[in-house]
Amino acid sequence: MAEPNLETLRAAFAGRLLVDAADTAPFLTDWRRKWTGRALAVAQPDTAAGVAAVLAWCHVHEVPVVPHGGNTGLSGGATPDASGRALVLSLARLNRIRSIDPVSNTLVAEAGVTLQQVQDAAREAGRLFPLSLAAQGTCTIGGNLATNAGGVQVLRYGNARELCLGLEVATPQGEMWGGLRGLRKDNTGYDLRDLYIGSEGTLGVITAATLKLFPLPAAQVVAFVAVPAPGAALALLQLAQAQLGSGLTAFELMSEQCLRLVEKHVAAARRPLESVSPWYVLLEVSDSQDEAHAAAAIEGLLESALEQDLATDAALSASGAQFKALWALREDISESQGAEGKTIKHDISLPIARIPEFIERTGAAIENGFPQLRLVVFGHMGDGNLHYNVSPAEGSRGDDQFAALEAPLNRLVHDAVAAFNGSISAEHGLGVLRRDEAARYKSPVELRLMRAVKAALDPKGLMNPGKVLVNDSMERL
Amino acid sequence: MAEPNLETLRAAFAGRLLVDAADTAPFLTDWRRKWTGRALAVAQPDTAAGVAAVLAWCHVHEVPVVPHGGNTGLSGGATPDASGRALVLSLARLNRIRSIDPVSNTLVAEAGVTLQQVQDAAREAGRLFPLSLAAQGTCTIGGNLATNAGGVQVLRYGNARELCLGLEVATPQGEMWGGLRGLRKDNTGYDLRDLYIGSEGTLGVITAATLKLFPLPAAQVVAFVAVPAPGAALALLQLAQAQLGSGLTAFELMSEQCLRLVEKHVAAARRPLESVSPWYVLLEVSDSQDEAHAAAAIEGLLESALEQDLATDAALSASGAQFKALWALREDISESQGAEGKTIKHDISLPIARIPEFIERTGAAIENGFPQLRLVVFGHMGDGNLHYNVSPAEGSRGDDQFAALEAPLNRLVHDAVAAFNGSISAEHGLGVLRRDEAARYKSPVELRLMRAVKAALDPKGLMNPGKVLVNDSMERL
Repeated sequence: MAEPNLETLRAAFAGRLLVDAADTAPFLTDWRRKWTGRALAVAQPDTAAGVAAVLAWCHVHEVPVVPHGGNTGLSGGATPDASGRALVLSLARLNRIRSIDPVSNTLVAEAGVTLQQVQDAAREAGRLFPLSLAAQGTCTIGGNLATNAGGVQVLRYGNARELCLGLEVATPQGEMWGGLRGLRKDNTGYDLRDLYIGSEGTLGVITAATLKLFPLPAAQVVAFVAVPAPGAALALLQLAQAQLGSGLTAFELMSEQCLRLVEKHVAAARRPLESVSPWYVLLEVSDSQDEAHAAAAIEGLLESALEQDLATDAALSASGAQFKALWALREDISESQGAEGKTIKHDISLPIARIPEFIERTGAAIENGFPQLRLVVFGHMGDGNLHYNVSPAEGSRGDDQFAALEAPLNRLVHDAVAAFNGSISAEHGLGVLRRDEAARYKSPVELRLMRAVKAALDPKGLMNPGKVLVNDSMERL
Repeated sequence: MAEPNLETLRAAFAGRLLVDAADTAPFLTDWRRKWTGRALAVAQPDTAAGVAAVLAWCHVHEVPVVPHGGNTGLSGGATPDASGRALVLSLARLNRIRSIDPVSNTLVAEAGVTLQQVQDAAREAGRLFPLSLAAQGTCTIGGNLATNAGGVQVLRYGNARELCLGLEVATPQGEMWGGLRGLRKDNTGYDLRDLYIGSEGTLGVITAATLKLFPLPAAQVVAFVAVPAPGAALALLQLAQAQLGSGLTAFELMSEQCLRLVEKHVAAARRPLESVSPWYVLLEVSDSQDEAHAAAAIEGLLESALEQDLATDAALSASGAQFKALWALREDISESQGAEGKTIKHDISLPIARIPEFIERTGAAIENGFPQLRLVVFGHMGDGNLHYNVSPAEGSRGDDQFAALEAPLNRLVHDAVAAFNGSISAEHGLGVLRRDEAARYKSPVELRLMRAVKAALDPKGLMNPGKVLVNDSMERL
């Protein structure tokens, strides 16, 4: 095929077309600077119709498309490959909140609206949009849905998937599917919505979504709890679910190693407890009644936990400032670990009951095989999701030798995850980072089904090629 | 193709093969006796491997397959057509609960386990499986998932879809997809699970599922509330969500007409309020604390509602017997309407905020166009889902003339639903009942996407042909 004429693309849609190296550079490297690629150009349509027009042009000219949101992904899903044949399709200018209906509890946002903007708009209408994660000021709702983002409130409210009632999608052929239903129940055919959610832009491009809103809680209290071991944390989770029901809105686990890193790298961080413990739990209660009722509920829980030796000490937030400070100890782990040097990350999930056994066994195996490394283990224990991360030895920032450990460490950790019936990507998606590993752990039947779906909806294989599934017609990245 | 030799099928799988007319008859007619068909035979494998073997045989011999669960569907999805070419595949003997994990809050059940059995097994383990609907003693979990069943607790816990963490599926080619993951987070590829859920057996056969369990509530209280109009019911819903948060686990609307039918046909039914009101709301509160806290919450709500003229009177359950008696007034509507004579049913959903306007406008249009009929309107208002049903005039049991009104009434109601951006099948699925109507209201793009998915996963078109989508190679039913 001849080189496509970009002038015909420029004429095909309303919006910007970036071609200069300085303009396109930010779209060609992921924010962690782990992947970099080249592109034909970067298209920035400002309407859904513009997105469809770009896709129609790509379809005719057989140009691969890499959809691009806030560029905060951790798996390289939004970075083009090195061929320079792909067009980057930036959704950043689709940035309108189209409507909000606080009676039906729905909000319609375009793909390029940031998660923070969605949260703020909901709050202004007296409602909660509960999806919450560290990158929320930059990541976009389109990207959140394309990767089925998780975060800290999944325990109560579910992943991005559960928070979406409907989608508007531009197909690879450049048609629009208008599936922006604001309905809680609709059984009129195949669930296309959930097929697009989590497909990382490989089946079509999400241009807008109808999101679920919830009542704002009247009060929230957080407790920072010292626990002797992951097994005690698990028993505490059981107790919290029994006593608090759906009032329990977050249950996070972190090791002393994590707290030490935050203390070292975040000036404002203060240890909330006098004693040092190998593990801590941060748990949040949301209450529809008032602060006093929330505090009473959490105090009742902690009393039982201390009595049953599930906890050794605990601090409770008594103000908005304390609430934020305690949460910051959890939220700043990732950045603090980054400040310490290179990081090898694993975003895994496990059957919740098996987490303590996994931590014990896999920790021992790493200590044996890689004695110089530091484990930095934290995560959303209530969802069975651990960020099972590794840092170089104390004092080292991580050199090429450390980087060379990534593959054997991934293998050790992910083989263990597979043996425990877990997932090697709980919330970060596959992108290119986990694509080949996923193919290793999935059954041939599942891979065949995924390929059949891909071929059916994107027969030319132009949508984000090489992400999620290996594209045989493309060179490997 | 030559007539397939059933002896080769008998040899192909463990389990029963029914061929005698007396044995197969119960599988050839739906329970409402609205549809009837013929079949080659009825296969009843007792393992997932047996299901796969049956499907492999059908694939080789190009025999259409009609999966069959508890036969309680309302849309004809489990009844074969008149050709007699299809094999009915009964899942009734896949009836084991494979495991239950109260720590991870998961339960693995085979497709033929009844919903009641799942609920009971969860309760014995001190957990709640919240899916709940009138047919629960007979319907099977496989059918519930294949049709994405709803019911009375969707407001808080979601549809069958939201209550399922993983599936085991036999493909049309006779392979097994082992997707029984008990994980809350797993972003490793396309969401095959949700594609099979709600696909009514047209893409593959669900053989087992991993289900989500919840803590058992400590207490539940129900209130039966007289409201002056649907608009007041909507305002009451808002108030209840604000005051009770996730403690609100059901919010049902019913008209005086419904209550009158229940009073007439159910001997044990007693009106809970002295005054007669045009509309009633039944609302349920679940509490993780205790009975007194639940009652205080609901009393606080009712006090505000009475003050704001959203309610005119209310009765509260003060015992388990009263709780059941109040719920029975809602649950017995469908049967009471059936006892009154023929019924024309509409299972619709709407954006919640627009329900009062829909009821007013569509009610007026029916009164105008069909003055002799009685509207029997009730449903899951908290989910935007109405059972917008019609009975013949008082004193008539419904004759052929009444039956002839079904098509024009469907058209009137469903055109109105479409104009309000609603759904013509909220929880009953399409089957054959709503298949052609769905094609009328869906966009060509959506139909093309659905057909592409169907062709990709069931290229021979053998899975439940003629359900959900028109199968061009089959005669119309």
